[in-house]
Amino acid sequence: MDIRAFLSKLRTGKYPAPSDINAFVLGIVEGEISSAQIAAFTMATCIHGLDQPGQLALTRAMCDSGTQLDWDVPGPVLDKHSTGGVGDCTSIVLAPALAACGAYVPMVSGRSLGHAGGTLDSLKSIPGINYNLSVDRFQEVVRKTGCAIVSASEEIAPADRIMFEIRDVTSTVESPELITASILSKKLAAGVDGLVLDVKYGTGAFIKSAAIAVNLARLMVTTANSLGCQCSAVVSDLNQPLATSMGGALELAEAMLALEGQVGRRLASLSSTLGGILLADTGLAADAEEGAAKIRNALSSGQAAEVFRSMVAELDGPSDFVENWRTILPKTPVVRDVRSPEAGFINAIDGEKLGLAVANLGAGRRVEQDAINPSVGLENIVKLSNSVEEGSVLARVHAADEDSADQAQQAVQDAIEIGPTITPRSPLVFKTIRTSEV
Amino acid sequence: MDIRAFLSKLRTGKYPAPSDINAFVLGIVEGEISSAQIAAFTMATCIHGLDQPGQLALTRAMCDSGTQLDWDVPGPVLDKHSTGGVGDCTSIVLAPALAACGAYVPMVSGRSLGHAGGTLDSLKSIPGINYNLSVDRFQEVVRKTGCAIVSASEEIAPADRIMFEIRDVTSTVESPELITASILSKKLAAGVDGLVLDVKYGTGAFIKSAAIAVNLARLMVTTANSLGCQCSAVVSDLNQPLATSMGGALELAEAMLALEGQVGRRLASLSSTLGGILLADTGLAADAEEGAAKIRNALSSGQAAEVFRSMVAELDGPSDFVENWRTILPKTPVVRDVRSPEAGFINAIDGEKLGLAVANLGAGRRVEQDAINPSVGLENIVKLSNSVEEGSVLARVHAADEDSADQAQQAVQDAIEIGPTITPRSPLVFKTIRTSEV
Repeated sequence: MDIRAFLSKLRTGKYPAPSDINAFVLGIVEGEISSAQIAAFTMATCIHGLDQPGQLALTRAMCDSGTQLDWDVPGPVLDKHSTGGVGDCTSIVLAPALAACGAYVPMVSGRSLGHAGGTLDSLKSIPGINYNLSVDRFQEVVRKTGCAIVSASEEIAPADRIMFEIRDVTSTVESPELITASILSKKLAAGVDGLVLDVKYGTGAFIKSAAIAVNLARLMVTTANSLGCQCSAVVSDLNQPLATSMGGALELAEAMLALEGQVGRRLASLSSTLGGILLADTGLAADAEEGAAKIRNALSSGQAAEVFRSMVAELDGPSDFVENWRTILPKTPVVRDVRSPEAGFINAIDGEKLGLAVANLGAGRRVEQDAINPSVGLENIVKLSNSVEEGSVLARVHAADEDSADQAQQAVQDAIEIGPTITPRSPLVFKTIRTSEV
Repeated sequence: MDIRAFLSKLRTGKYPAPSDINAFVLGIVEGEISSAQIAAFTMATCIHGLDQPGQLALTRAMCDSGTQLDWDVPGPVLDKHSTGGVGDCTSIVLAPALAACGAYVPMVSGRSLGHAGGTLDSLKSIPGINYNLSVDRFQEVVRKTGCAIVSASEEIAPADRIMFEIRDVTSTVESPELITASILSKKLAAGVDGLVLDVKYGTGAFIKSAAIAVNLARLMVTTANSLGCQCSAVVSDLNQPLATSMGGALELAEAMLALEGQVGRRLASLSSTLGGILLADTGLAADAEEGAAKIRNALSSGQAAEVFRSMVAELDGPSDFVENWRTILPKTPVVRDVRSPEAGFINAIDGEKLGLAVANLGAGRRVEQDAINPSVGLENIVKLSNSVEEGSVLARVHAADEDSADQAQQAVQDAIEIGPTITPRSPLVFKTIRTSEV
């Protein structure tokens, strides 16, 4: 292909032919396209977008750039993907719950970055756990236990990995077209039959505006369905942390409460909504309501916890984790309550500030290479619209030392806005976009 | 500086602060900016443009990225720059003519690339010539003889060299803002007091449309004058080769005819127009007409040829070149006339096709590293609006062998369109944009 002519087309706002996009992605993995040319592509695509044939071609080509998994299992292969944000440990609840309902869930998760937490960093707080599996072993664990939460394999969608490194340093991450191709290429390569997307917006999410989240959700749902994957999306509010804890072990503890059947919380509620849609889309439930009831039942009956126990054991973790997580999970030497300086209502929680406070405690990464401390974080974070008295607990800080606790205490106070009158909060689920609607 | 924030601003069509542009260019030469980030910058700038403060900052910063020349000479330091095209050997005529009129002309020229010829490849046909001078030696030759035509120094505007390599492979060359910064940064670093731009448009030029050429000319004139350099521009027609020859030695031969006083040709005409404006802008002539007359006089009197003789000798060429160029210049074994297959009028000449035919004969480069053959090319190229009979000569091919002559013969016939009625041709000078008008 003529790469200059291809980039020239993109630069002038014309849409390149799908066959050229395909050849470009092939050239990336074969090392024929320079990083400068990839950056020119991502910048032009960020600015001018892609048409639908181009979107499908890019997603398909990135999927085809590496290994694609085949499954020979007696149930649908399902997955959930979240666009990321603070205090979100839905994956740990949902993967075993879906498996308990008859699905197979090969879930490739990420680590924390910036202000957002990562499922793998929560899992990492389980002593001995190993989520870096070969593709063969990954498939074996899923077949055996019904689910596995693992790190990304270099074999899956390598074009995405190369492109993402360049998007990261060139400020070209924020493109609906590139985000869609990046996420879906990996899910398609993992061979999933059904996918539910949790597109988060708000102060704690990467996407701040609901309108942008809805657009992205529509694009992803349309693209996935055009490529043969049953896909629906939930646009959910993250103007406060989803869970009341943030940080590796503290988030995992909250997920364990849900797996023990405490289904009244926001975390369990969103998990059952997402799972219910997915079960309905793939024939394991008559509709989303029945699906959600099945997820709640999997949680309250202990069946999901049993799946989780098996998965932890298969990933080299302790076999008694489900019974003894309270003693097994690591603790910090310093635990301190942050108290409200005044009476009033919780009117705003800046999730990004809270996320950075947790990262500064040692639970997050500024750059990909940073080591993390799984025991630090925040617990009992107050909720939006709650009323507080002077001296009420806003959050509990778990810190490695007094100095970092001091900093976190200040950061929590800065992140939480208290006012004299109540501000109504948004519903947890802002919008649902179903397979059948696109 | 925060490079991600800078690129994000460019991506969303906002204009970055001049101080950030300055820091970015500094980061390029200090190796702190990756090639992917440079590509993201050039692509976003191609698409969204720059505002005037940004344009000035980019040009200034690229100029400041390397050595800047100071001149202690008893006359103005002048230069001409052409945006490039086929059959253009104006520099070889104009540099010595300007010097003969009292100016000092440090002319940094380029080599041929793609379909366009290059002044250095014409000079290269002079046996022994060396145009790769150190900055010190370059200044010495200019002081002594009044002019020197040399290759670019790595010391001058290194940010431009790094950026251009990336623009070349990412299809981000065609940006008025980047072209302006690239050209003017080098001219400013060379310490010129006055500059005339020959912005070419037409089938033989890089720029095909007159409107685009006029816009570029205005931007360059405005920018140069804002940065303290007297600058005017001529937008000239290149819908046919400027000279009647193309190829290293053949173009040089045509320049030698002009230096011998044959001032009736298009080449000498454009040279005197460009030189006249430059002399007028910098006080060496009362107005452009008087300036043009001075240039014509420098050519017809033999004074320009004397300057050229000295320059060639200083650049290690033969001291008798001006007298004996007809015997000194290399010849090809095969010389063949291309004849018209029909009677009619020359209605179009595709200069790019002719340029590629010459490149295929061995006189041009597909990529920067290609070696060239200075003796091959075209001569006696027919002119637009001329009438031809069946069998009239359309051009004379000079080739290294019969096979390449066959190919060139076919290419010349394909490039020249003959019709039954005459199509009027455009004037050589389409528009002049003077210092005083902006």
